[in-house]
Amino acid sequence: MIILIDQDGTLADFIGGFTEKWAAKYPEKTCISPEHYLSPRVLDHYSDEPREIVESIYSSPGFIFGLSPIEGGIEAVKEMAGIGYDVRICTAPLGLYKNCIVEKYAWVEKYLGQEFVKKVIMTKDKTLIKGDVLIDDSFQKGMLIPSWEHMVFDRPYNRDLSGIRLNGWKNWKDALHLLRDVYPQKS
Amino acid sequence: MIILIDQDGTLADFIGGFTEKWAAKYPEKTCISPEHYLSPRVLDHYSDEPREIVESIYSSPGFIFGLSPIEGGIEAVKEMAGIGYDVRICTAPLGLYKNCIVEKYAWVEKYLGQEFVKKVIMTKDKTLIKGDVLIDDSFQKGMLIPSWEHMVFDRPYNRDLSGIRLNGWKNWKDALHLLRDVYPQKS
Repeated sequence: MIILIDQDGTLADFIGGFTEKWAAKYPEKTCISPEHYLSPRVLDHYSDEPREIVESIYSSPGFIFGLSPIEGGIEAVKEMAGIGYDVRICTAPLGLYKNCIVEKYAWVEKYLGQEFVKKVIMTKDKTLIKGDVLIDDSFQKGMLIPSWEHMVFDRPYNRDLSGIRLNGWKNWKDALHLLRDVYPQKS
Repeated sequence: MIILIDQDGTLADFIGGFTEKWAAKYPEKTCISPEHYLSPRVLDHYSDEPREIVESIYSSPGFIFGLSPIEGGIEAVKEMAGIGYDVRICTAPLGLYKNCIVEKYAWVEKYLGQEFVKKVIMTKDKTLIKGDVLIDDSFQKGMLIPSWEHMVFDRPYNRDLSGIRLNGWKNWKDALHLLRDVYPQKS
């Protein structure tokens, strides 16, 4: 079973990291709390601000590498791999890719180890990647009908998405069992 | 039709770039001419040298970005995309990924434009990527049986590989027609 796992918003706390940096740099400006997000896209919530200053936060050197892991994610990935699942980190680069790409790899190396660096798949279009399940906080259409089932990593902003839902990493085994019950061909 | 195209050794002249830098930096040492390569792996040809000094050439900042395009490759990719093929650059990161990854993206942006940056798929295991054909100078086994047919980008070191062969970029249309004749389901 091939399990694809998204990075930002699923393993790494992108919005939390942005919020912290924003509040520290612009204490006088409005700061949107992560639980009030209505989409996974930071820019959607700061449309009154110049795009450049919002983007400069998360495209700065060190931002991606400095993101905190989302609770339980690293342990879950290691446990999955230990059991024998083929786990791949399936992540899209930011448009401003200069710092983000290498830092995504370095983040994986830091938290999951060097062997996992070989398991990163960096792609804008995840429908081109083969897998049985994609655990992801968001869903982007792509060129193809995906071979994977989307398991929605539950976040305040994605309650509208359909699909089997992972309510926090501690529940990954139950969610995977449910997926197999619903889609027996994914076993 | 989804056409996956490898980067190093297929679009970018990695071995040529290495050879030039090696000869300039170590004029007193043996330098293997690209036409005498027996594998796509530089290290295989410099096994008498300390691995670190060989690797330091191609992991240096600017090496990947500075690679010359292989003759006709950029024009071929642009023509394919213009005709309406879905072309993706499908490339594996070096083990020493620090400079290489972002420079691979920057190289694509330089020669193919910003829109093509979105079409890069960075993966160690290309068998996980969906496509009809993979044009690549080398073949690496992976986790899955590939959905693509391997079109061998002809190089002196890969004459042992079976598959439809692309003898220089100027012949891409003929090679693709041949592929379709042999595998009509790829049309």
